[in-house]
Amino acid sequence: MDLGMIGLGRMGGNMTVRLLRDGHRVVAYDRSAAALQAAGEAGAECVTTLEELTQRLTPPRTIWLMIPAGAPVDDTIARLLPLLQRGDLLIDGGNSNYRDSQRRAAQLAEHGIGFVDVGTSGGIWGLSEGYCLMVGGAAAEVARIEPVLRSLAPAGGYAHVGPSGAGHYVKMIHNGIEYGLMQAYAEGFELLHAKREFDLDLAQIAELWLHGSVVRSWLLELAARMFAAESDLATLRDWVADSGEGRWTVQEAIELAVPAPVIALALMQRFASRQETSFAAKVVAGLRHQFGGHSLQRAE
Amino acid sequence: MDLGMIGLGRMGGNMTVRLLRDGHRVVAYDRSAAALQAAGEAGAECVTTLEELTQRLTPPRTIWLMIPAGAPVDDTIARLLPLLQRGDLLIDGGNSNYRDSQRRAAQLAEHGIGFVDVGTSGGIWGLSEGYCLMVGGAAAEVARIEPVLRSLAPAGGYAHVGPSGAGHYVKMIHNGIEYGLMQAYAEGFELLHAKREFDLDLAQIAELWLHGSVVRSWLLELAARMFAAESDLATLRDWVADSGEGRWTVQEAIELAVPAPVIALALMQRFASRQETSFAAKVVAGLRHQFGGHSLQRAE
Repeated sequence: MDLGMIGLGRMGGNMTVRLLRDGHRVVAYDRSAAALQAAGEAGAECVTTLEELTQRLTPPRTIWLMIPAGAPVDDTIARLLPLLQRGDLLIDGGNSNYRDSQRRAAQLAEHGIGFVDVGTSGGIWGLSEGYCLMVGGAAAEVARIEPVLRSLAPAGGYAHVGPSGAGHYVKMIHNGIEYGLMQAYAEGFELLHAKREFDLDLAQIAELWLHGSVVRSWLLELAARMFAAESDLATLRDWVADSGEGRWTVQEAIELAVPAPVIALALMQRFASRQETSFAAKVVAGLRHQFGGHSLQRAE
Repeated sequence: MDLGMIGLGRMGGNMTVRLLRDGHRVVAYDRSAAALQAAGEAGAECVTTLEELTQRLTPPRTIWLMIPAGAPVDDTIARLLPLLQRGDLLIDGGNSNYRDSQRRAAQLAEHGIGFVDVGTSGGIWGLSEGYCLMVGGAAAEVARIEPVLRSLAPAGGYAHVGPSGAGHYVKMIHNGIEYGLMQAYAEGFELLHAKREFDLDLAQIAELWLHGSVVRSWLLELAARMFAAESDLATLRDWVADSGEGRWTVQEAIELAVPAPVIALALMQRFASRQETSFAAKVVAGLRHQFGGHSLQRAE
């Protein structure tokens, strides 16, 4: 089918390639000339304004947003709104907060414009393996974009999980789980690495566990690949970013008053990884010294 | 090759079947007549004493122990020792503590008897899918039992990871990771379940995530199967056992002074699941009442 793609970064660019391969017509927009050129070389029709994007598509239009969550999505919708008409449909495939998606669906519905929220997992591997798509919205609108979903996902890799917002909610929880899984593997590998007397080969063990063990997973496949390239990770800094979904999962746990201690702790461990110094560790060291005269180390 | 199998429970029984299928000769022993009979029907030669087991095997013998960790292993070794001779080889495929395996390897070496520790993962699925085998011991002894390892494991599913004890060490860490993974999934599914407004279908979501998502794994396959059978888990009690390896992993983290907070917390959550009442929750409720006059609920 015909669709517009707004945002040609790592995710949107690869999704465009996957759609073109499957015979869809993609009108592509990005502020970056380099990203536009790459999409053009893959066969997309490139445009440099949103006006041109909407002009090149025949109503009822389908436009996929694959841009950073938050203000960029609201800004783009605000700029698109005057260019759209009743019956057009917007898809937000990014990592938007599900409450924003609920609000945007209601806002666009007032103008007769459809909205589908699609939580997208798969990262840079999605191009070859397909993306897992968690879809929220009205059934008729989801049905309308099924040809696109089918092209982006592997077999079985998309599903309509609920009303507007549900797609991004499920994606948020997916990422919260991901935080916990990664931290659990990470602690285990550190315990293997720390056991010097056995001189264990982490690449060998990660690869071994892929075959018949209870902990086999796609993340473990990536770990096996990573340790095969560099078993001691000497070139990496112990600094972990977080891009919001873990925080939202913990905030959701707080709002629902549902315990999610491991996911919350995995998030905190990322924060800890980014501290140059731990003030809390200073407090504990200082208090031990205060009450027990225990030794402490002075900053140099 | 010829080998003795001591212990025909869920694991040992299935392993015997897998070995027999691959043409090995298995002399099988268990205290349970029913387990013996099942092994006999599968083609094993059944014996009712350890004496008979050792008599039926031609030295140098190979004997696989698949029995509960701890005293049962020491008891069995003590009973076997007078029946064995130099050059014989014992394999402990159970969930023994790695320090016990180090001790037993040294003890048996004094008698010229070989010892290989094999951490075994795969549970009841190992029969069909093969077991992941983490093997510790001397290279020559591991090489000697390779035909058996090859039959029990899927392709790529066994590896010699280090000296005596290393197999059970790696298995212990594997299980520690498993605790963290399971708790992370569990918290995520509870957050999906608790979001009533979306009326999410946990079976659908687990199945969806298997296709292209970052959290896809074998445990998630089991979750999809579980939720497909009973989406609200209404027939299950919220009571989780633990069989020791998680505790050992946390004890090892303490001995190495390596932080493993998520694995430790996952273990604590299992303990919490088994409490009829939480004394700590009473303490917190009582203290809130003490300092702030906050309301609390009285036991009935």
